[in-house]
Amino acid sequence: MTRQIKLGAFLPGGGQHIAAWRHPDQPADGATNFEFHKQLALTAERGLFDAYFLADGLAAAFSGGVEGGNAKVAGFEPVTLFSALTPLTTHLGFIATASTTYEEPYNTARKFASLDLISDGRAGWNVVTTATEAAARNFNLDQQLPHAARYRRAQEHVEVVKKLWDSFEDDAFLRDKDSGVFFDTAKVHGADHAGEHFKVAGPLNVSRSPQGHPVIVQAGQSEDGRGLAAATAEVIFTAHQHLDTAQEFYRDIKARAAANGRNPDHVLIMPGVSPFVGRTEEEAREKYDRLTSYILEEDGIALLNGLTGGTLDLTGHDLDGPLPPAPPTEGNKSRQALIRQIADENGFTIRQLYQWIASARGHFTIVGTAGQVADMLQEWFENEGADGFNILPPWLPTALDDFVDLVIPELQRRGLFRTAYEGRTLRENLGLPFPANRHAARHRVVEAAE
Amino acid sequence: MTRQIKLGAFLPGGGQHIAAWRHPDQPADGATNFEFHKQLALTAERGLFDAYFLADGLAAAFSGGVEGGNAKVAGFEPVTLFSALTPLTTHLGFIATASTTYEEPYNTARKFASLDLISDGRAGWNVVTTATEAAARNFNLDQQLPHAARYRRAQEHVEVVKKLWDSFEDDAFLRDKDSGVFFDTAKVHGADHAGEHFKVAGPLNVSRSPQGHPVIVQAGQSEDGRGLAAATAEVIFTAHQHLDTAQEFYRDIKARAAANGRNPDHVLIMPGVSPFVGRTEEEAREKYDRLTSYILEEDGIALLNGLTGGTLDLTGHDLDGPLPPAPPTEGNKSRQALIRQIADENGFTIRQLYQWIASARGHFTIVGTAGQVADMLQEWFENEGADGFNILPPWLPTALDDFVDLVIPELQRRGLFRTAYEGRTLRENLGLPFPANRHAARHRVVEAAE
Repeated sequence: MTRQIKLGAFLPGGGQHIAAWRHPDQPADGATNFEFHKQLALTAERGLFDAYFLADGLAAAFSGGVEGGNAKVAGFEPVTLFSALTPLTTHLGFIATASTTYEEPYNTARKFASLDLISDGRAGWNVVTTATEAAARNFNLDQQLPHAARYRRAQEHVEVVKKLWDSFEDDAFLRDKDSGVFFDTAKVHGADHAGEHFKVAGPLNVSRSPQGHPVIVQAGQSEDGRGLAAATAEVIFTAHQHLDTAQEFYRDIKARAAANGRNPDHVLIMPGVSPFVGRTEEEAREKYDRLTSYILEEDGIALLNGLTGGTLDLTGHDLDGPLPPAPPTEGNKSRQALIRQIADENGFTIRQLYQWIASARGHFTIVGTAGQVADMLQEWFENEGADGFNILPPWLPTALDDFVDLVIPELQRRGLFRTAYEGRTLRENLGLPFPANRHAARHRVVEAAE
Repeated sequence: MTRQIKLGAFLPGGGQHIAAWRHPDQPADGATNFEFHKQLALTAERGLFDAYFLADGLAAAFSGGVEGGNAKVAGFEPVTLFSALTPLTTHLGFIATASTTYEEPYNTARKFASLDLISDGRAGWNVVTTATEAAARNFNLDQQLPHAARYRRAQEHVEVVKKLWDSFEDDAFLRDKDSGVFFDTAKVHGADHAGEHFKVAGPLNVSRSPQGHPVIVQAGQSEDGRGLAAATAEVIFTAHQHLDTAQEFYRDIKARAAANGRNPDHVLIMPGVSPFVGRTEEEAREKYDRLTSYILEEDGIALLNGLTGGTLDLTGHDLDGPLPPAPPTEGNKSRQALIRQIADENGFTIRQLYQWIASARGHFTIVGTAGQVADMLQEWFENEGADGFNILPPWLPTALDDFVDLVIPELQRRGLFRTAYEGRTLRENLGLPFPANRHAARHRVVEAAE
């Protein structure tokens, strides 16, 4: 089959752009409005998106959260929200962010296996380490763990969760009413894990789910992040300003995955793209300018501060002057570097910088017609820059509708995107293999030897 | 308004009775069958139940879990399941069990506030401490914490969660598109908690939910458990074999609540009742005998072992002889005592004991006509034994249908039960007050003093 573009949609009810909530189209209470999220899910499914994607944090992001914008100070916990959307949809996948830093693997494994069962195989877990001092202070700490320590814990957390997801082999449950035998004890397995951070006996008390494992998603860009992603992720969310850095990332991750003994085709690279789509270039530009006009100075400054690690004090700086240097961060290192790069390359003032990143916080922002957006996606897709994209509509629901009504048909005309869902599960639609249960694999070896 | 009976329904998809899954009516895969849970929720709502209630554990209950029965070895995480049921229902409440022992209060607060928002005010949290060594071994421990330590942690956990639920005052969000002011910073508050077990700064990143606080439910029967319940719970689930012990418990809890400065009417006592309902006594008895016939000896023994703290070894004992003494437990102390009481009072053999408790594990089991069941409920309700009941249909869906079709109409005829939901939220249907935000109360005092 011809390779086609995979698409995720970032649809936070509060809007992606930090001033989205002020747009007349966007419900001001979108972040905590369930009916609005339902509408977004139905639109994403109409557009044949692979998945609805939600970020998450473990602290109210007041002044300078990475997500930025007061409209996102309070929202839903993503797994709880997504679960409620599953019975209202049939094919759309749901990729929820959950922390490896402040949750226990047994709880993580349970909730994602449950979501996968409830959705009949449409769950994905975006594995993150939780940065920010604010989150640390909500979990019994005075300050966050160092970057490298968070990644070590993350790697082990994922390892334990995957072991737990293999607790029951696919044919472990016999459920024979006549004999009263419910399961085959030989096909139930402990995790028997004892590592640096976790000691988990298992087995899980949720059965193996329709996808075997919910799809593992990751977004780390730093050296630690790339290592984790190449070792464990099946979908990698990434942020690039240029095709050449996207290509460098793409090739590096595929090579690392191969070095880990993985099939590089089963590691999908999906950069973020934030599109302002118009029927004409002028209309697209008007949409950009309009949303920009809603940004308050204080919110722009808070956003910059959050994205650069919470250590950049812009008090007293001329907003129409250049960005001052910032101290190194133990927070999101790759994001900090990216923001700096955008400022330097474009010669942006502080104000121009926050206006430009207000939509997508470092992801590629494009203002143009459907044809121009499709051109960009096609170029990256066909030149080792991307296997697909995570679309970040700047405000909702209109920018999502624009993408579905204008860009999707253009991609379909070019044969670059599906005209119907290929499969039932998220894994099937993404073209990812069903992961064999580690214990079942052992049985097969025994059978083959007989 | 006339006081009426409140009703919760325990509807585990795997069935309440340990052999329920072998009954021809019950889907053998009920525990992980979402469509089946949906059917149960719709039936409970048709029956005007206040809430759908689910227990939970943090280990696969193989040989002797407290819940007993292999059909429940793997199921759904309750909050994830309930969230998916909320958009399919309109009035039914959802009371999910979650552990104070192996979760962090910030995460607990988030998921229940999210469920309350998504369901438009129909969430309840059954606060438990997680006993069993098996669970401890899934959370980095070699053995469980002592009983008293678990309860101290539980009390503080609830305290922190309630503080977090008050992070945003009800009118904190202005969402003024014109000015760009999203919230009133004076109406957002940290938890600023530092205690024996938890240090949590807050605020929560979920807004205050429709009920203010999801309804707090508790089920502890021991001295520690009663203390926690009287201090924090609004609904108390309890297990009694006789009206007189139910009355002792009822009066004790109401007195303790009053001593804590609480209105005793806002602490609802709801014993568990497991009904086998027939159109005749004979039909009811046939239903009981049929389900009993499905119990495997090994499952009965495992159930007894689980309920008595996992320390009772029945190997080599005559199943038609008396129950041997068991060592004290650090597990569920009150349940251990109750099981012993049932054996002693009835002069049960080991076999008779596990057959009787197979339905309800220590809760009141009644085999009779709708009139006889209604008589029992009425007697307890009108004589300080209960404010309502948690109904544990022994197998599903039939025993739930029987209750809805036979007992509910009888209670309605007697004026003891609603004929339509009174309110929109679980709190309103239970007749519980909306909890004022602790910070808003302070504003009001200031206003009153002006």
